[in-house]
Amino acid sequence: MKFTFVTLFPNLIEPYFYDSILKRAIEANFISYEFYNPRDFTTNKHKKVDDQMVGGGAGMLLFCQPLFDCLDEIKKKNEDAYIIFPLAAAKPFKQNDAKRLAKKKNIVFVSGRYEGIDERVIEKYANEVFSIGEFILTGGELPSLVMADAIARNVENVLGNADSLDVESYENNLLEAPSFTKPENFQNLSVVKEFLKGNHNKIADLKKNLSICKTKYFRPGLVTNKKFK
Amino acid sequence: MKFTFVTLFPNLIEPYFYDSILKRAIEANFISYEFYNPRDFTTNKHKKVDDQMVGGGAGMLLFCQPLFDCLDEIKKKNEDAYIIFPLAAAKPFKQNDAKRLAKKKNIVFVSGRYEGIDERVIEKYANEVFSIGEFILTGGELPSLVMADAIARNVENVLGNADSLDVESYENNLLEAPSFTKPENFQNLSVVKEFLKGNHNKIADLKKNLSICKTKYFRPGLVTNKKFK
Repeated sequence: MKFTFVTLFPNLIEPYFYDSILKRAIEANFISYEFYNPRDFTTNKHKKVDDQMVGGGAGMLLFCQPLFDCLDEIKKKNEDAYIIFPLAAAKPFKQNDAKRLAKKKNIVFVSGRYEGIDERVIEKYANEVFSIGEFILTGGELPSLVMADAIARNVENVLGNADSLDVESYENNLLEAPSFTKPENFQNLSVVKEFLKGNHNKIADLKKNLSICKTKYFRPGLVTNKKFK
Repeated sequence: MKFTFVTLFPNLIEPYFYDSILKRAIEANFISYEFYNPRDFTTNKHKKVDDQMVGGGAGMLLFCQPLFDCLDEIKKKNEDAYIIFPLAAAKPFKQNDAKRLAKKKNIVFVSGRYEGIDERVIEKYANEVFSIGEFILTGGELPSLVMADAIARNVENVLGNADSLDVESYENNLLEAPSFTKPENFQNLSVVKEFLKGNHNKIADLKKNLSICKTKYFRPGLVTNKKFK
């Protein structure tokens, strides 16, 4: 899987690949990444990439020409390029999307900045548009990284222990149960006693019940399946 | 506003403050940041921070001692410390939270890694717990940065043009309308004609309608207010 980042600020993205799990995945050639800067595709002498909105409105938008030329170049070089725009106004990115997109060969993330991107760029080039949540950020770089991280850990071999992919939050639409590690008692705070007794069926039942309680409390919308009522 | 990041991987976070809007905000002293590494608070000779789960389960958890000592130290030094855990299983972080938290003096983000954190750490120290979305990441570093970014741009003076805070997505529970910039026609793609005619009332009405349509399409749950039906 190759991630292609289209951004005016590659320095906000690249260091995230220098450490921890993604670093190891790159060293082992399970994933790779590259950058394209729309400023390198400008045809005006000041390398300007943004302009005022047509029809009025505060703030500046990235205009068409540098992004059109940049994305044409990417599509010419990578025939598998699958282009995603992180946008505030788009469908929510979810765990199922991370799993589905982990099967692609090349995902291209186009980061907006300032007030956003001329809508024509999105209409012409987007394979999908995603929002990572109901909040506003200074640019598309962090949502691109968030999606790349969520997708990368579902790419084959990236996580050392494949088991841990199965028992985490949002699998089966449930949040994960509370977890504990040693010692059993720390500063008078104890782990849930049942976890210590070694009856794995009982522990599994309890975790399931704790998952359902936690989900009902934090995300009632997720618990729509009748068997959880 | 000071952001305190508790993380095993400060290198995944710090470079995000080296460029663009947040760099300027730091240079102008509107925001600042610092790091604490739980590994510096270990009392075991191998500086180990993680251990197996009690009761079974794949993956490792951060255990209590280093985080307890680290967070005690932070609370001693910063009496305004407001501690947030980014977790998969928590309430959703939203734009109203970003605005509300922008009034705090010191926000502490505690990043989990591996399979997570011993629940006792969260029970003892969390002022709030947030999830940025229904997907799983390799650690808490990106969600911490996402929240810091969303909060920072609501801190007074951080955005140069305060106007642009009012007309963006999730204000009034609507997604932002499509925006266009020059030229009016690019490679036979035209901007929405009404935007060119200069009647600002008509443009405002059209943008409102486009916002409602976009919201109904991408986020029907947001459009609950009767006046939008």
